[in-house]
Amino acid sequence: MSYPITVQTNDMARYVEELGRIGEQPGGGMVRFQYDAAWAEARDLLCRWIEEAGLEPHVDAVGNVYGRLVGEDDSRTILTGSHVDTVPQGGKYDGALGILAGLAALKELRAQSGRPRRSVEVVALCEEESSRFQANFFGTRAIVGLVTRDELDESRDVDGHSMATAMESVGLDPDQVGTARRKDLDVFLELHIEQGRNLQDTGIDIGVVDVVTGLVWERFTVQGRADHAGGTPMDLRLDAMQAAAEMSLEISRNVEDAGRPGVVTFGQWAVRPGWPSIVPASVDVSMDLRHPDQRTLNRLVEEAHAIAHSVAGRRNVQLSVAPLKDEAPTVLDPGLQAVLTESAARCGATTTTLSSGAGHDSQLMAHYVPTAMLFVPSLDGRSHCPEEFTDAADCARGASVLATALHQLAY
Amino acid sequence: MSYPITVQTNDMARYVEELGRIGEQPGGGMVRFQYDAAWAEARDLLCRWIEEAGLEPHVDAVGNVYGRLVGEDDSRTILTGSHVDTVPQGGKYDGALGILAGLAALKELRAQSGRPRRSVEVVALCEEESSRFQANFFGTRAIVGLVTRDELDESRDVDGHSMATAMESVGLDPDQVGTARRKDLDVFLELHIEQGRNLQDTGIDIGVVDVVTGLVWERFTVQGRADHAGGTPMDLRLDAMQAAAEMSLEISRNVEDAGRPGVVTFGQWAVRPGWPSIVPASVDVSMDLRHPDQRTLNRLVEEAHAIAHSVAGRRNVQLSVAPLKDEAPTVLDPGLQAVLTESAARCGATTTTLSSGAGHDSQLMAHYVPTAMLFVPSLDGRSHCPEEFTDAADCARGASVLATALHQLAY
Repeated sequence: MSYPITVQTNDMARYVEELGRIGEQPGGGMVRFQYDAAWAEARDLLCRWIEEAGLEPHVDAVGNVYGRLVGEDDSRTILTGSHVDTVPQGGKYDGALGILAGLAALKELRAQSGRPRRSVEVVALCEEESSRFQANFFGTRAIVGLVTRDELDESRDVDGHSMATAMESVGLDPDQVGTARRKDLDVFLELHIEQGRNLQDTGIDIGVVDVVTGLVWERFTVQGRADHAGGTPMDLRLDAMQAAAEMSLEISRNVEDAGRPGVVTFGQWAVRPGWPSIVPASVDVSMDLRHPDQRTLNRLVEEAHAIAHSVAGRRNVQLSVAPLKDEAPTVLDPGLQAVLTESAARCGATTTTLSSGAGHDSQLMAHYVPTAMLFVPSLDGRSHCPEEFTDAADCARGASVLATALHQLAY
Repeated sequence: MSYPITVQTNDMARYVEELGRIGEQPGGGMVRFQYDAAWAEARDLLCRWIEEAGLEPHVDAVGNVYGRLVGEDDSRTILTGSHVDTVPQGGKYDGALGILAGLAALKELRAQSGRPRRSVEVVALCEEESSRFQANFFGTRAIVGLVTRDELDESRDVDGHSMATAMESVGLDPDQVGTARRKDLDVFLELHIEQGRNLQDTGIDIGVVDVVTGLVWERFTVQGRADHAGGTPMDLRLDAMQAAAEMSLEISRNVEDAGRPGVVTFGQWAVRPGWPSIVPASVDVSMDLRHPDQRTLNRLVEEAHAIAHSVAGRRNVQLSVAPLKDEAPTVLDPGLQAVLTESAARCGATTTTLSSGAGHDSQLMAHYVPTAMLFVPSLDGRSHCPEEFTDAADCARGASVLATALHQLAY
């Protein structure tokens, strides 16, 4: 027996607004980094809301916050949720909405349907964005057993603090990291904003994700020569920034020419020594290249390297490329996709199948637990920015579809 | 009566080496910023050396350090010197060498020729590079009466400290700034490294400078739109950095195509929000454009603006251009150029006439006092970098020419 579980628009609006105040910056945008003060405040607020919803709160050894609706059989768990950290100057929806939709869904399930057959749980994952440490998917990695004690000492933020120190500062014991591992998970469902404009452009309510894109992060380091800006003729310079600028333009053009859905971004730049009257000596620049098809992704990365080396050769500068991330495309569970599509229909919501251009906790979780994702619309596809926005009605519609799917799976 | 005054190579080598230790960084390069600890240490060392050389030391209200060789007529002054501050990760010669050559010259003049007819003085100007405050030519501006008391409160370093506070921290009284003005100067001579490779390439000993290049500094601000690197197709982006990169490449190509001696440099970049997975929303980038001919300079700046606006229009981003500096080309005193050329001949040094691509205190001083400059070779033309180097014999040869010219003018 399954029927639409309805989450109220007002509830979602209040959740988003109140959590969205924690970490909000004076100039706009959210900064809620792993284990910072805003993160700890958000953890406390979520624990309060979990108790108010009649769920059992639990904070694990790495700071993942859980709210559990205990089922008749409490040995296995159906999990939903997303991450609570943000990128710098990020928005109020990326990550947060998946937690809040899960919380609202469990609250309604408990209120409308009582005790489930199987236990259902919502989780606020402590870190997904590498916002403070280079610890991508940290919360999920701890759950699937991929975090070692050593990492907590080795991983450091820009100020040189180790993750272990940061954990202690928010009351967590680094030595307990192993206890965060979960072996009782049967399902993971994640609701997320689309971070693209397919849903907005087509007017469809819900995206059911079939594949999370493959992603390569690299750091290009270009080494030229510092020279005086007045005394050095143009034709004698080894300007690292001119070379890096040309690489980024040519690689971007190549990916754009290859057509959607491939994307490449050069987002983080360090130009040294960084003085108006000194020819740049060196540049570090990040490359983020994505495609949902592994072979096409490989080809685009190879072409990027060829272009960069060609520019470096032409301009007589040194180039080195350091790998930072290499995440294969992840196909999500077809059975769970069908459950989401069916639940949406029960809620009167239209659906389409989408691939995700963004990385998500789901892509890691999917290798351990049957996993699916649903997207709600993002205004103008904006994300990772203060302008991130999803209408409260769209949030509630997504949460209702999630609740209905959880009902189908757990009752 | 005039004859070659010879400065010893060993003296110059020792001066350069010892002063070059003050502000030297562990990773290489000099950081000696206006009124910082290294600056104060350099001031104290110079005062010691001035006394050792038998000259009268004096530190003025803004921290310019003088050493005076009193003449029979002490009412007027022939001044030589340069600046003591460095750019970030700069070298040991830019600025410093002009002070040390002046000091060595005055020491030898006193030892070899005794009391001059007119007083001769060496100065270590406190600031030329805008190294800490945006206070370009500050030492010289104080001497010619262009610094107001208000500037000392208004000018702030990156940490928000006012210049007045910084002055007090090194024992200077901001209220006395007016007393730094000099009205007794008849001549200013500045020795400097070439910061180019004309002398090295031609094997000529000394460059006599006819004109200091004109210079325009501007800040281009490009405003695009932050977007998620995964969710936003290439063709829908407003990537501020791609636009800024294209502007910098096209403008550089245009200046290079126009031929020597025009130069343009994009050296200082701030890319926001600066995250690998966020499409850059905005970029601030400095443009430094130089040409010794005013009309050509104007034309190149206009073309730069046209290119930048064209790129901004094509890429649908906003562009604003803020002026930072606009320094007209400065013709130096022909009579003093002749004195330098003649003195070089007396010293057995070959000379050529050069324009200066770099800005110098001389270009401001020249509007108030008859001024000339001489260049000594720079290894590979390197400057504003740790590799800056001039052979001690070249330093001593330049100092001897300077001393001989001062002798001709003052005895």
